[in-house]
Amino acid sequence: MQKTGILNPDLLHLLARIRHTNLLVIADRGFPFWPMIETVDISLVDGIPTVLQVLHALRSNYDFTQAYMAQEFLVENTSDTRAQFTAALPGIPLQFEPHMDMKKRVPDAIGLIRTGDTTQYANLVLVSGRP
Amino acid sequence: MQKTGILNPDLLHLLARIRHTNLLVIADRGFPFWPMIETVDISLVDGIPTVLQVLHALRSNYDFTQAYMAQEFLVENTSDTRAQFTAALPGIPLQFEPHMDMKKRVPDAIGLIRTGDTTQYANLVLVSGRP
Amino acid sequence: MQKTGILNPDLLHLLARIRHTNLLVIADRGFPFWPMIETVDISLVDGIPTVLQVLHALRSNYDFTQAYMAQEFLVENTSDTRAQFTAALPGIPLQFEPHMDMKKRVPDAIGLIRTGDTTQYANLVLVSGRP
Amino acid sequence: MQKTGILNPDLLHLLARIRHTNLLVIADRGFPFWPMIETVDISLVDGIPTVLQVLHALRSNYDFTQAYMAQEFLVENTSDTRAQFTAALPGIPLQFEPHMDMKKRVPDAIGLIRTGDTTQYANLVLVSGRP
Amino acid sequence: MQKTGILNPDLLHLLARIRHTNLLVIADRGFPFWPMIETVDISLVDGIPTVLQVLHALRSNYDFTQAYMAQEFLVENTSDTRAQFTAALPGIPLQFEPHMDMKKRVPDAIGLIRTGDTTQYANLVLVSGRP
Amino acid sequence: MQKTGILNPDLLHLLARIRHTNLLVIADRGFPFWPMIETVDISLVDGIPTVLQVLHALRSNYDFTQAYMAQEFLVENTSDTRAQFTAALPGIPLQFEPHMDMKKRVPDAIGLIRTGDTTQYANLVLVSGRP
Amino acid sequence: MQKTGILNPDLLHLLARIRHTNLLVIADRGFPFWPMIETVDISLVDGIPTVLQVLHALRSNYDFTQAYMAQEFLVENTSDTRAQFTAALPGIPLQFEPHMDMKKRVPDAIGLIRTGDTTQYANLVLVSGRP
Amino acid sequence: MQKTGILNPDLLHLLARIRHTNLLVIADRGFPFWPMIETVDISLVDGIPTVLQVLHALRSNYDFTQAYMAQEFLVENTSDTRAQFTAALPGIPLQFEPHMDMKKRVPDAIGLIRTGDTTQYANLVLVSGRP
Amino acid sequence: MQKTGILNPDLLHLLARIRHTNLLVIADRGFPFWPMIETVDISLVDGIPTVLQVLHALRSNYDFTQAYMAQEFLVENTSDTRAQFTAALPGIPLQFEPHMDMKKRVPDAIGLIRTGDTTQYANLVLVSGRP
Amino acid sequence: MQKTGILNPDLLHLLARIRHTNLLVIADRGFPFWPMIETVDISLVDGIPTVLQVLHALRSNYDFTQAYMAQEFLVENTSDTRAQFTAALPGIPLQFEPHMDMKKRVPDAIGLIRTGDTTQYANLVLVSGRP
Repeated sequence: MQKTGILNPDLLHLLARIRHTNLLVIADRGFPFWPMIETVDISLVDGIPTVLQVLHALRSNYDFTQAYMAQEFLVENTSDTRAQFTAALPGIPLQFEPHMDMKKRVPDAIGLIRTGDTTQYANLVLVSGRP
Repeated sequence: MQKTGILNPDLLHLLARIRHTNLLVIADRGFPFWPMIETVDISLVDGIPTVLQVLHALRSNYDFTQAYMAQEFLVENTSDTRAQFTAALPGIPLQFEPHMDMKKRVPDAIGLIRTGDTTQYANLVLVSGRP
Repeated sequence: MQKTGILNPDLLHLLARIRHTNLLVIADRGFPFWPMIETVDISLVDGIPTVLQVLHALRSNYDFTQAYMAQEFLVENTSDTRAQFTAALPGIPLQFEPHMDMKKRVPDAIGLIRTGDTTQYANLVLVSGRP
Repeated sequence: MQKTGILNPDLLHLLARIRHTNLLVIADRGFPFWPMIETVDISLVDGIPTVLQVLHALRSNYDFTQAYMAQEFLVENTSDTRAQFTAALPGIPLQFEPHMDMKKRVPDAIGLIRTGDTTQYANLVLVSGRP
Repeated sequence: MQKTGILNPDLLHLLARIRHTNLLVIADRGFPFWPMIETVDISLVDGIPTVLQVLHALRSNYDFTQAYMAQEFLVENTSDTRAQFTAALPGIPLQFEPHMDMKKRVPDAIGLIRTGDTTQYANLVLVSGRP
Repeated sequence: MQKTGILNPDLLHLLARIRHTNLLVIADRGFPFWPMIETVDISLVDGIPTVLQVLHALRSNYDFTQAYMAQEFLVENTSDTRAQFTAALPGIPLQFEPHMDMKKRVPDAIGLIRTGDTTQYANLVLVSGRP
Repeated sequence: MQKTGILNPDLLHLLARIRHTNLLVIADRGFPFWPMIETVDISLVDGIPTVLQVLHALRSNYDFTQAYMAQEFLVENTSDTRAQFTAALPGIPLQFEPHMDMKKRVPDAIGLIRTGDTTQYANLVLVSGRP
Repeated sequence: MQKTGILNPDLLHLLARIRHTNLLVIADRGFPFWPMIETVDISLVDGIPTVLQVLHALRSNYDFTQAYMAQEFLVENTSDTRAQFTAALPGIPLQFEPHMDMKKRVPDAIGLIRTGDTTQYANLVLVSGRP
Repeated sequence: MQKTGILNPDLLHLLARIRHTNLLVIADRGFPFWPMIETVDISLVDGIPTVLQVLHALRSNYDFTQAYMAQEFLVENTSDTRAQFTAALPGIPLQFEPHMDMKKRVPDAIGLIRTGDTTQYANLVLVSGRP
Repeated sequence: MQKTGILNPDLLHLLARIRHTNLLVIADRGFPFWPMIETVDISLVDGIPTVLQVLHALRSNYDFTQAYMAQEFLVENTSDTRAQFTAALPGIPLQFEPHMDMKKRVPDAIGLIRTGDTTQYANLVLVSGRP
């Protein structure tokens, strides 16, 4: 039996395929559905689980070189929420850009993890490795 | 967009098929894998989500007429944990039986929801409706 | 067993994937078949069920921010029918446009619910959430 | 375009395979889910559609030689409801037997049509043709 | 058991999806194979069944608003054959155009019924409903 | 393009797998549906095609060593019909047995060809090759 | 059991779909693999079977109206080999063109038969029927 | 590109799974079809390829510890044919048993290679490795 | 990108489903193929990778409560090889039993990892968790 | 049982389809995941297996006419590593080009073998045969 780490077979399968230049999306409760992108939906109800819980789960064994979030995230949330997201991405450059621009990156992603998070604009595009 | 309730498409699909006499299993982190049973795995890491979170999510719109748990659950857990499980099954008769007996009911289930719960013996077989 | 709400597993599965910006089509008996769009067909015979029954079923737990119908709907139906559709979309802006234009929106939809409705031009494109 | 009759592609496909000795089940809202039986689910919400609507839809172009229902149906429903079901099966022998016995016939069925009917014990096993 | 009408499950399933603006092709023995178009092949040997038999089968319960055939059909066949096809499409405008032009319509069809007909150029593109 | 013989791709694929000891069923319009048996349905409407047409199609390039039909076929049909079937099986021993017994052979078949034949009890179990 | 002709179920299935204007490729041992083209591979080892064996197998019951081969075939092979290929295509116009041009026709083919032939440039694009 | 050996991708895939105790069947033209056994059919027409060609192809890189053939093979064929089969199985014990007994071993096989061989009873069950 | 641990997506997916009482097989180069058991084949050529490499890969994050190997392993290998296997299973009871008995456990396994190991009888059945 | 060579069924199946002009990619641990390319992943953990082990496995029975690697490979690795790769491609022209250019060739590949190699830029695009 597995001792530690991510428990979900589909998540592990997806994450093992995120390699140099591959994009991964972590999505909140209301982020659009993208029929062509492999999606692992681990949502239960509002707030379970959160995007921060996914980021913490990724932290121990997966690294990313760049993160993108919507500028609207900064406006719509408290400084506390903003700080939690920054802390959850230690050493990873986080770029804020208009939500409409950030969504243009999504079709290049090879996977999307959907949560039940209700935080406003709590979606990330994560880039893995170097070009 | 959906306003309230369970968010997960696969969970909703499974739950809509739990009808009179159908059995549903809620499983913790370590409960055996059953290749022949439709499984919705919403686990992330240890403790996310919990079996109690699933039971609370089911409470508003699904009712069950009987629940089975392992007697070992009573022995291995604190009175607080025991009380939380009982509270999460209001009005539903909860029968404790040896873990080995409880597992004999599983092959009759039409679905299993797997969580990341680390509570000892935190597995339930839920019976829906009347014979 | 499920207490209230939509009973159909495939419908629930589709609706749980209608999120911000996603489009859903509710179609009458004769609306074209679109091979590339996920379709849940709940028609039985003429008039069973109706588009209004689907709209009422959606009302309790799903919200939409915009609706589109054909202008021809206004011409071909009685004021009573028109009033029923308006009432079924409370608070949702309803835009009428030429049938040919409204159909150009359909390829962007991620799902279509087909009914047995025989009302003339009783088709809607519903938009979920905000951009 | 089809002029009259059953509109649903999956229903038509199933019904065209109900031939001599083949069994078909018409199920209400709460009848058990049978994973091994081909199921066409046309339910929307409670009461839409009804089992009687399905029986009426079948009447014009499908004939059956025997019907089985639960004795409990007779006890739990009004004489009006009972009369409607009898009228919906003109010329078809209708046998009432204990619900538990009637359910033993289900595994031999090659298809099941699920409705949203909330009438108590509104389930039928229909036999097609002669041995 | 089904009393009258088309008996073939796959044909019924396809025909139930031919709605407003949808195109259906009826093909003879030698009409090209189109890998991307859903095909129901009911051919047995030369001349079994014929395109006229399919048209007669469609007549009772399906209506079309336009038909296209190759001009070459007029040249290569007897007046008797031509008359039979016209009679099989009562009230449906039948337009003849060069075979090469008629084939350009085929990729828009959502289904093709293949027969064993050996009549020269005995292929039709049928349009269902109105735009 | 194929010059002569059976035209149907699925029929050819099935028949190429009928070898020593393999059983093939030719079925009329109302013969039961057997979910576990590979079925090629070439029926259109009543009487199209017939079982005799299938037997004639098989005659040129497929041989069988034994045929079984229901005794009821002899009782329910005219001597003319009986003669046509005998003639269609030249040199193949044809054994009549009770319909219920003949149906017990069907689960051993590896394929079934369904026609639209309305002749009473016009079903055959054909045995290919030697043991 | 089948008496004569091509024995392979997949080959028969493919060939029954080669109709007017459809292209078929017969390929030697080393001809490129085309992921998008339905391929029936009947190769065993070098030289088993040959392209000529396939052409002879096709001769009795399939006709083609045009064949294309690489000009390089003429250069790289003996007159004897060249004569055998010409003889295997009686009455079928055979056009030689640069190998690179001939390969541009392949994406339009609906099927490819792969052999173990080691003859240099022993690949054909065969056209069936008329436009 | 592959230099030598078996060229067929499906054959290579099957043979790589023949390990200790696994059974492989090499079948002639008329050997029964077994729906439950993975079959690689490389037949073209009568006599192409032969079972001996398959045995020779296997010889260089696959070894077997036991072979079974029908006693009827010995009776129905010439001494020359018999000698060729023995020579093709160098060092492999070859046991002859009644055809009916030999066929009882087939359901345990994990694969079957079908040829076009017309030699009488030219079928083998090959056992790989040790128990 | 993943930092450490098992890299193979299919292996991770399988291992995440090995929970209490579930059995996993690690197989050498020649261990039988079991068609009904999910198999992850990571073999390349003889000796790549080895069973010991798999055991070491499992060590950091998966624990097992029991291991079974063939008694023949002890006889056929050197003390050095025996010691390496024992060392690779620290704290896990290792039971030796006749190879034939050990293989009887395999059908209960939910997964098998195949290596290229050429060590004699280098196969293990691993049991996860407690009953 | 197979005597020598590549043991992996999926690898053998892929390699048998690498023919004239087909491209094959050998990838290290971190090379991007390409969803549209058939991938055989034989990685276990870091360094198992290596790209050199795959190249050696290919050497005996597969030949290639051209190889491409990233120029960055030359800069980031020792002369010893560089020499090993050159030696593993005897007689195959090896062209170094910017990593970004080399990756542009990948979408034309029909297969990718993923290893666990941790050597910097240890990826190859191999071309098979001649144009």
